[in-house]
Amino acid sequence: MAKKVLIVYAHQSSSSFNAAAKNIAVEVLTAQGCTVEVSDLYAMGFKATATAEDIKGDLKDAENFSYLEESKLAWEQGRLSDDITKEQSKLTEADLVIFQFPMYWFSVPGILKGWFDRVLTNGFAFSQKKPYGLETFKDKKVMLSVTTGSPESMFCTIGINGDINVTLWPLQNGILHYCGFQLLSPEVFWAPALAAAEDRKKMLESWRTRLQGLLEEEPLSFTPLYCFDKKTFQLKYVGEEFGLSVGIHRSNPQSSRSQMD
Amino acid sequence: MAKKVLIVYAHQSSSSFNAAAKNIAVEVLTAQGCTVEVSDLYAMGFKATATAEDIKGDLKDAENFSYLEESKLAWEQGRLSDDITKEQSKLTEADLVIFQFPMYWFSVPGILKGWFDRVLTNGFAFSQKKPYGLETFKDKKVMLSVTTGSPESMFCTIGINGDINVTLWPLQNGILHYCGFQLLSPEVFWAPALAAAEDRKKMLESWRTRLQGLLEEEPLSFTPLYCFDKKTFQLKYVGEEFGLSVGIHRSNPQSSRSQMD
Repeated sequence: MAKKVLIVYAHQSSSSFNAAAKNIAVEVLTAQGCTVEVSDLYAMGFKATATAEDIKGDLKDAENFSYLEESKLAWEQGRLSDDITKEQSKLTEADLVIFQFPMYWFSVPGILKGWFDRVLTNGFAFSQKKPYGLETFKDKKVMLSVTTGSPESMFCTIGINGDINVTLWPLQNGILHYCGFQLLSPEVFWAPALAAAEDRKKMLESWRTRLQGLLEEEPLSFTPLYCFDKKTFQLKYVGEEFGLSVGIHRSNPQSSRSQMD
Repeated sequence: MAKKVLIVYAHQSSSSFNAAAKNIAVEVLTAQGCTVEVSDLYAMGFKATATAEDIKGDLKDAENFSYLEESKLAWEQGRLSDDITKEQSKLTEADLVIFQFPMYWFSVPGILKGWFDRVLTNGFAFSQKKPYGLETFKDKKVMLSVTTGSPESMFCTIGINGDINVTLWPLQNGILHYCGFQLLSPEVFWAPALAAAEDRKKMLESWRTRLQGLLEEEPLSFTPLYCFDKKTFQLKYVGEEFGLSVGIHRSNPQSSRSQMD
């Protein structure tokens, strides 16, 4: 059956490098027979703030408003605002989700942070009682495709920004792995704004090539849930196959001068 | 002279734990003779998305809109939108800035991410040509005051979330140290929503006590800029006093089972 792809895209300009990367993904995946849907957040005027307006009808406790609790209840009762429900439907349908965005302040732009905050609702996308353990999205693949402002040299283990994997950890482990997605290796476009036109072209061609086989890629490996104590969520068992580390989630060998020693 | 304090506060409810923490900061710092201003982002309806509407007058290149470039130019020419200019004035005035927020998805809520994206304008808050090197904010102290959803056990070096310092690295190093602020140690309120009323009270009392001496605290230490190569921004010199690590920016000893090995 044809795979469904959702691209959550966060750039203001249709002539940007991010737009080009998004367009290539649409083109290559469509040519493979996938149904591709794009959530163009700026074009949609996507609301980035988690407020009581996200909930239809009466709040359970307006005096002591808790977004976490009220949005969970609204999700259970079908009272989330239409823009959230629509994104959740797209996510439910998707076999693969690609987040295409420029890095803003070592993370996603506010508009995409708002998407995570509002669409990945308590109960729908995660369970507080089962951290990392809700299996709703276990068959879905997901990946970050990101342009940086800094060159790669600044994002290595001895670079002043720190290892790119550390910068991506809150997004990759904290959001996507927490929600139980299968994570594909991120596509990092190093500082395209500083690159020559020819080099930007090469980056996009390399992305095009990767996209051909993207659906067959093996996901990244995280230390499995059973290695952690069920109550404290601290490492209790360390298998040879996973090593001691839960912080590194790519197969890159680590420098012996790791910043995080 | 009386110190000026800016509290950037991001919670929807005035009866929340975050509101209580903010109120205590206002109270204690005011009692010390400080002038305290609060940016209550939800109450202000703060815009969280970086768009062309943030710029008054004509864009330099509307066809190829670059927020980074257009906002820099608009800042230079006094054409940023009033809400941004107002926040920048508060920041310019402040001797101390406290960000009070609940952790949303291992980072700040979208509305606060939008504040960083829009207020810390290229040219005003940082220089691409001098990463970590613009000295505009060098006399200002800044700190994160954050409530978590997960307990501390999950945020230690062997916890499934990873070390809290890794989660805070993009915020503390990537945003605040990059902009040249003096960073005070974060105040982390561990899962107040899961705590007994008595324990929540203790957390706030401990915060009250810390606030008494906050203005005299020594800032966190980061590996100084001169230890990095001027071109690649990679570590070239390692002084005894800083060690090999640029990733750890608190004085906590690291576990030998560090996740980041």
